[in-house]
Amino acid sequence: MANTSATLDHLIDQFAKLPGVGKKSAYRLAYHVMQAPIDQARALAQAIIAVKERIVFCSVCYNITDDDPCPICRSTERNKAMVCVVEEPHDVLAFERSGAYQGVYHVLGGVFSPLDGIGPEELKISELVARIKGDGIREVILATNPTAEGEMTANYLAKVLKPLGVTISRIARGLPMGGDVEYADTNTIMRALEGRTEF
Amino acid sequence: MANTSATLDHLIDQFAKLPGVGKKSAYRLAYHVMQAPIDQARALAQAIIAVKERIVFCSVCYNITDDDPCPICRSTERNKAMVCVVEEPHDVLAFERSGAYQGVYHVLGGVFSPLDGIGPEELKISELVARIKGDGIREVILATNPTAEGEMTANYLAKVLKPLGVTISRIARGLPMGGDVEYADTNTIMRALEGRTEF
Repeated sequence: MANTSATLDHLIDQFAKLPGVGKKSAYRLAYHVMQAPIDQARALAQAIIAVKERIVFCSVCYNITDDDPCPICRSTERNKAMVCVVEEPHDVLAFERSGAYQGVYHVLGGVFSPLDGIGPEELKISELVARIKGDGIREVILATNPTAEGEMTANYLAKVLKPLGVTISRIARGLPMGGDVEYADTNTIMRALEGRTEF
Repeated sequence: MANTSATLDHLIDQFAKLPGVGKKSAYRLAYHVMQAPIDQARALAQAIIAVKERIVFCSVCYNITDDDPCPICRSTERNKAMVCVVEEPHDVLAFERSGAYQGVYHVLGGVFSPLDGIGPEELKISELVARIKGDGIREVILATNPTAEGEMTANYLAKVLKPLGVTISRIARGLPMGGDVEYADTNTIMRALEGRTEF
């Protein structure tokens, strides 16, 4: 597309770099911004810069935060003896939304991915070990994703953390609530059988 | 959603104001920007500000442009005697993409919309009249959308421009190329019959 404004074309290109935004959506977004009040455009531009400049990683759990340590690590109402180990900050969000967890977190910043050259050194694993050694932690819940990489990472962590004398558990894998046995994949069915609990 | 970073939440809110961007997409976009290189974030932010600060309306045709008059009105290769009247700048783009039009344009900036209080005064109609009176224009093609509002606006323009002694035409309405008679709506079928041309 070649608009009569190169400035508009440039914004379209920038929007099109975002995930899930094709050329047509990028055009619609750029066109909207062009017609939006200057205040709204400025607010968006500033918010974009702010996430790059203001957000830091919590020095305790490596979750994203505006103030270090993060609100969860600062809270006096959380159970600091229980750590839930997740891959990414958005996983913390999922647990927090559930309201079912009162412990603290440890964000690895990813999972093992040999093809991308991501091994133990690239993840916050030595930091987790140091935390467990020093912090009065009694239970570690491994909540990496139930994918090949997530399972591999969880298995590695279990091996590394075992000698530290803490209780280690892995989140349950099975049929999702509201799911359908008929449409479940073979791996999930296998897991659901293996992990069955007695009534 | 309440992230551990209010800065991230704020960006999510800003993205969610854009058309067609729901909460989940806004989260994905914000998360991407947070993890993107600072240069990419800055380029996006600057491009957003630029469309507000740099783009102006062409003083001849009222299309958007970085330099006034716009490249089309400046061009010596366009037929200045023929004006295609469209609703919005993106309509110009559609005609230009087709490569089928060598005349110039006039962008109304909308269509009549009594409910929104948009009448002749809110559109660039007196500017079009002045242009036709002064500019050696011989033919005006009314290319507003084939919607109720677009037809109403085209009819009004035809009435107003008739006394100026220019040829006035309306773009054809009928079945789109590659379309399917079976799935065409009644209005389109009616139009296609009315506008039939002899072999």
